[in-house]
Amino acid sequence: MINVVGIGPGDLKMMTFQAKEAIDNSQVIVGYKTYINLIKPILSDKEIVSNGMKQEIERCKEAIEIAKTGKIVAVISSGDAGVYGMAGLILELLEVEKLDLKVNIIPGVTASTAAAALLGSPLMHDYCHISLSDLLTPMDLIEKRVELASQGDFVICFYNPRSKGREHHLERAFELIKKYKSADTVVGIVKNAAREDEEKIITTLEAIDYTLVDMTSIVIVGNNSTYKADDLMITPRGYKI
Amino acid sequence: MINVVGIGPGDLKMMTFQAKEAIDNSQVIVGYKTYINLIKPILSDKEIVSNGMKQEIERCKEAIEIAKTGKIVAVISSGDAGVYGMAGLILELLEVEKLDLKVNIIPGVTASTAAAALLGSPLMHDYCHISLSDLLTPMDLIEKRVELASQGDFVICFYNPRSKGREHHLERAFELIKKYKSADTVVGIVKNAAREDEEKIITTLEAIDYTLVDMTSIVIVGNNSTYKADDLMITPRGYKI
Repeated sequence: MINVVGIGPGDLKMMTFQAKEAIDNSQVIVGYKTYINLIKPILSDKEIVSNGMKQEIERCKEAIEIAKTGKIVAVISSGDAGVYGMAGLILELLEVEKLDLKVNIIPGVTASTAAAALLGSPLMHDYCHISLSDLLTPMDLIEKRVELASQGDFVICFYNPRSKGREHHLERAFELIKKYKSADTVVGIVKNAAREDEEKIITTLEAIDYTLVDMTSIVIVGNNSTYKADDLMITPRGYKI
Repeated sequence: MINVVGIGPGDLKMMTFQAKEAIDNSQVIVGYKTYINLIKPILSDKEIVSNGMKQEIERCKEAIEIAKTGKIVAVISSGDAGVYGMAGLILELLEVEKLDLKVNIIPGVTASTAAAALLGSPLMHDYCHISLSDLLTPMDLIEKRVELASQGDFVICFYNPRSKGREHHLERAFELIKKYKSADTVVGIVKNAAREDEEKIITTLEAIDYTLVDMTSIVIVGNNSTYKADDLMITPRGYKI
């Protein structure tokens, strides 16, 4: 059996009871080493299989091999396992192999809503998630989605906004957004949400300092009603108050 | 002090430790009666203020009045408090009144990712949330967003997809989607996610029976790579496996 567990953004308190229980009930814990470290305090004497970034396929294959031996395996994702996480890969691999292993997907608090809670309430209206990583998605499709989401005045949450090797994707995205959204549209950045060194910045499309954004950041671009009030980013739901 | 608490989709196990702690630490619990009932077992002897649907403004104003007296108040939202929930309204009301009350927003597992976990892994690629309720949003903006999201081949999660008085919004949305997405695009429906009578249906844009969808449902429309395998809905992340 495989439990694919979304552990939430990082802080153990932001894990669900169900996620904790699934980890407690598993014999082997498989995950990216950074995420394993986040939950170390609750792993006690479990067998741990961890590896580095970009090794997702090997990691999931290994989890499946272990589960085939009859052990209960927990595959760890940060945030929600089904949002750019490990749930899809596990199910895809099982489907290719036509294996009939039991899989439980345990949802968690995803990075965008964790970041939003720190910023205020930026996600109170229709929004979208776009990953700016072009490792698995062609850049032209990413750009097309950025343009269409901007045209529709969606609030936009960027996952994987910037890293070494992708230093200019966010800047390029903002250029496209500015074709449709005003340059003073409110932008929220949260770094290391619910982890040590958590940091939030509220700025605008025009004033952003891109160098403040890194791989651990979520960037949320507001819609045309989003406003800044003190240190909060608020998107109105539309109530007449 | 006000804790705006996302309790997750319904099952107490899908609440975070932080949400439980915030409720435990609050003296008065304010919420829509259906959500209060979901968490009744953990409210023990708390003072409870609950009311019905469409009374969100009254409810939040009442929470603020109680908090002004110095009591610690928890305002309950299902799912994540910041996703079409109570977080925005509380912050907006405080901003209008220029009140300096401390507010903690406690995120939770939102309905879309809870539904996704039951369906398989439909949200593994870029997706958006669109509410089909036109109580607070003009129908032409909703329709514009549906068209643009379809053009961008986003996975689309519909909140508030269908209710009395809005019986044909989903059908109208699907007509628009079919201008851009193939009629055999996979569609997942989850009713009462993580509650009694939970039910899931995997169908297509063309084959859907709209009458199966109600107010408690989340409807997820796949992208052009989403497929059905047995009773699962899978959106590939893009790995070469």
